[in-house]
Amino acid sequence: MFSLTVCDHIMIAHSFHGDVFGPAQRRHGATYAVEAEFGALALDDLQLLIDIGLAKAELRRVLDRLDYRDLDEVAELKGKNTTTEYMALHIHGLLAEACRSGALGEAGRALAGLKVLLRESPNAWAAFEGPIG
Amino acid sequence: MFSLTVCDHIMIAHSFHGDVFGPAQRRHGATYAVEAEFGALALDDLQLLIDIGLAKAELRRVLDRLDYRDLDEVAELKGKNTTTEYMALHIHGLLAEACRSGALGEAGRALAGLKVLLRESPNAWAAFEGPIG
Amino acid sequence: MFSLTVCDHIMIAHSFHGDVFGPAQRRHGATYAVEAEFGALALDDLQLLIDIGLAKAELRRVLDRLDYRDLDEVAELKGKNTTTEYMALHIHGLLAEACRSGALGEAGRALAGLKVLLRESPNAWAAFEGPIG
Amino acid sequence: MFSLTVCDHIMIAHSFHGDVFGPAQRRHGATYAVEAEFGALALDDLQLLIDIGLAKAELRRVLDRLDYRDLDEVAELKGKNTTTEYMALHIHGLLAEACRSGALGEAGRALAGLKVLLRESPNAWAAFEGPIG
Amino acid sequence: MFSLTVCDHIMIAHSFHGDVFGPAQRRHGATYAVEAEFGALALDDLQLLIDIGLAKAELRRVLDRLDYRDLDEVAELKGKNTTTEYMALHIHGLLAEACRSGALGEAGRALAGLKVLLRESPNAWAAFEGPIG
Amino acid sequence: MFSLTVCDHIMIAHSFHGDVFGPAQRRHGATYAVEAEFGALALDDLQLLIDIGLAKAELRRVLDRLDYRDLDEVAELKGKNTTTEYMALHIHGLLAEACRSGALGEAGRALAGLKVLLRESPNAWAAFEGPIG
Repeated sequence: MFSLTVCDHIMIAHSFHGDVFGPAQRRHGATYAVEAEFGALALDDLQLLIDIGLAKAELRRVLDRLDYRDLDEVAELKGKNTTTEYMALHIHGLLAEACRSGALGEAGRALAGLKVLLRESPNAWAAFEGPIG
Repeated sequence: MFSLTVCDHIMIAHSFHGDVFGPAQRRHGATYAVEAEFGALALDDLQLLIDIGLAKAELRRVLDRLDYRDLDEVAELKGKNTTTEYMALHIHGLLAEACRSGALGEAGRALAGLKVLLRESPNAWAAFEGPIG
Repeated sequence: MFSLTVCDHIMIAHSFHGDVFGPAQRRHGATYAVEAEFGALALDDLQLLIDIGLAKAELRRVLDRLDYRDLDEVAELKGKNTTTEYMALHIHGLLAEACRSGALGEAGRALAGLKVLLRESPNAWAAFEGPIG
Repeated sequence: MFSLTVCDHIMIAHSFHGDVFGPAQRRHGATYAVEAEFGALALDDLQLLIDIGLAKAELRRVLDRLDYRDLDEVAELKGKNTTTEYMALHIHGLLAEACRSGALGEAGRALAGLKVLLRESPNAWAAFEGPIG
Repeated sequence: MFSLTVCDHIMIAHSFHGDVFGPAQRRHGATYAVEAEFGALALDDLQLLIDIGLAKAELRRVLDRLDYRDLDEVAELKGKNTTTEYMALHIHGLLAEACRSGALGEAGRALAGLKVLLRESPNAWAAFEGPIG
Repeated sequence: MFSLTVCDHIMIAHSFHGDVFGPAQRRHGATYAVEAEFGALALDDLQLLIDIGLAKAELRRVLDRLDYRDLDEVAELKGKNTTTEYMALHIHGLLAEACRSGALGEAGRALAGLKVLLRESPNAWAAFEGPIG
């Protein structure tokens, strides 16, 4: 099994609903360092898993929907606590859709898996891993 | 598959028994940066994998049994070489027990897996991954 | 010259005023990894620059005023763009005051300098360095 | 499942063939930080997954074939684009061969798996994971 | 004293001349993670040291002259060993020129200092620090 | 001003004397990641600050006196609390002596300064900086 990972980051505000969140119920924010790990069973004839330029561009395009925003006001996240683990799932969904659409080329359609990991601080992070659809 | 990881560290002394260990047979020590990765198949109604506050507190509680100690003198480790890989297994056992006991809430009892990784230096680390019970 | 550095982090929301900020004029947020570097010309009789336990506790106490907050609503920051460089200055002021007050012991009163560095992302950070007063 | 990881690095030149590579078709280079993760189902009687000294030495011996070289002129890589993902596969092959040969001891012959990960920059890396024979 | 640092990276090939370099006399390469630290005595009325967007853009523009190249063939480096310390000096010169030219705004012309640091591997880096003109 | 930094690490045991140390009075240990930063006003005719191979070798030779040891039993440290800041001073002394002796070549004798920094954990480190003699 091969994997290729590219990274980027976003800076967002949000707040959480539910007593379990304690002080994180207040409006606060995070820098999320985002790692997108693309999995494949084989490389192509040029020894590529995927076009890394396209991968970086699509990750950026997906993150531009969220970057420098208050997630409490982003329509597609309405009614959800935008926890790190939930945002990993959400970004996975957006990237997987891009793969299925062909935005990452034919290799993107044939990926064996996709893992999205978000680091919220030096000592906490969360991920979602699954097929692309 | 979702995962949530929290980190902490301990500073311990120990020595190893067996010629294969060379100079590490002498009493020495390590800072172990400890990463506990909790795995789950789904998030709860609040978009949480697990209560991260409880996760950090339980990891700390487990590590307090070992922190600032000479592992050669810790009863529960008697007769064992406390290699990084063995300590990953040992801490996994303690954390898994905490999960089963309900110390991490109902979500902690339902975890799909747990991985404990210990970094002993910038260029060596070890891990144990398995179910919680 | 000796230095001792301790780290912690905060997760905050804020927005900036001024066209130069572009999309950062929208409400967003950041995880700030905060490094406090204490400088001294000599160590004490116990070979300590400063009590590291007190240093961590005071840094935490200072950061608690800011953590999990929208900086736009924090009274002491009213009318300021809470840029990373400005927050380094602000936290420097709070920590320097703690040093002068004796909260870090006599060694804290005798420090030769203090540097506060905030990392806002993997590829940008800012600092303020100066005497403690 | 246990794992033990050791790291080292190489500094190489190379160029790529194919329009998809854009400016990377020019001769350029990379520092590859190389992580070799050895997997095993159990530890031995000394609580070791594998002799970490042998693991580091074999990784170094394998990397010496590539370090401080122009990969375009290395015979065993002739006709291949030495992408990060391909180099992960290539180094996996060399290390797996060392494991099968007994160079990492009996434990090296019994490994459950081997993952080789190469970091090419702070925000891109690739890996190959598979059995050793 | 305030500082603001932005990072980027380049991937280059080169070779060194002189017996002292040993195997590094062969053509090889490096990923250089480049940190540009801008120093200033004060912030402006918007609490900015410098426009971080301009700083990132100018660093990128400077690095584009070197990225994905064989430094042995870059005219401006002819006859020099492009060691990490020399490249820090070289990039410092290019960035300082940009500051003097006004490319980083008026604040860029008034900088108190500039430090350029290049990381060549996880365990070696070099820097040059000096005024901008 | 130029600087060149090389890194290595040691794994030691020790204990501290004095109530201020709390649980660190017990025998424990640390992985110290050691950074040696050599400062110089100019590069030589080969564009070198210092021979990096010699720098790494001398750092290793110095660290071998301490690595895999209980610092409480090292004669040269008798009667001292081997705090991180004190160990930075101690290693600085040993490296500075090597520089003065010519072990790092003529460039080593002409260094403008030397800084030794020890990281004890992901969130604490200490350093000593001074001339070489």
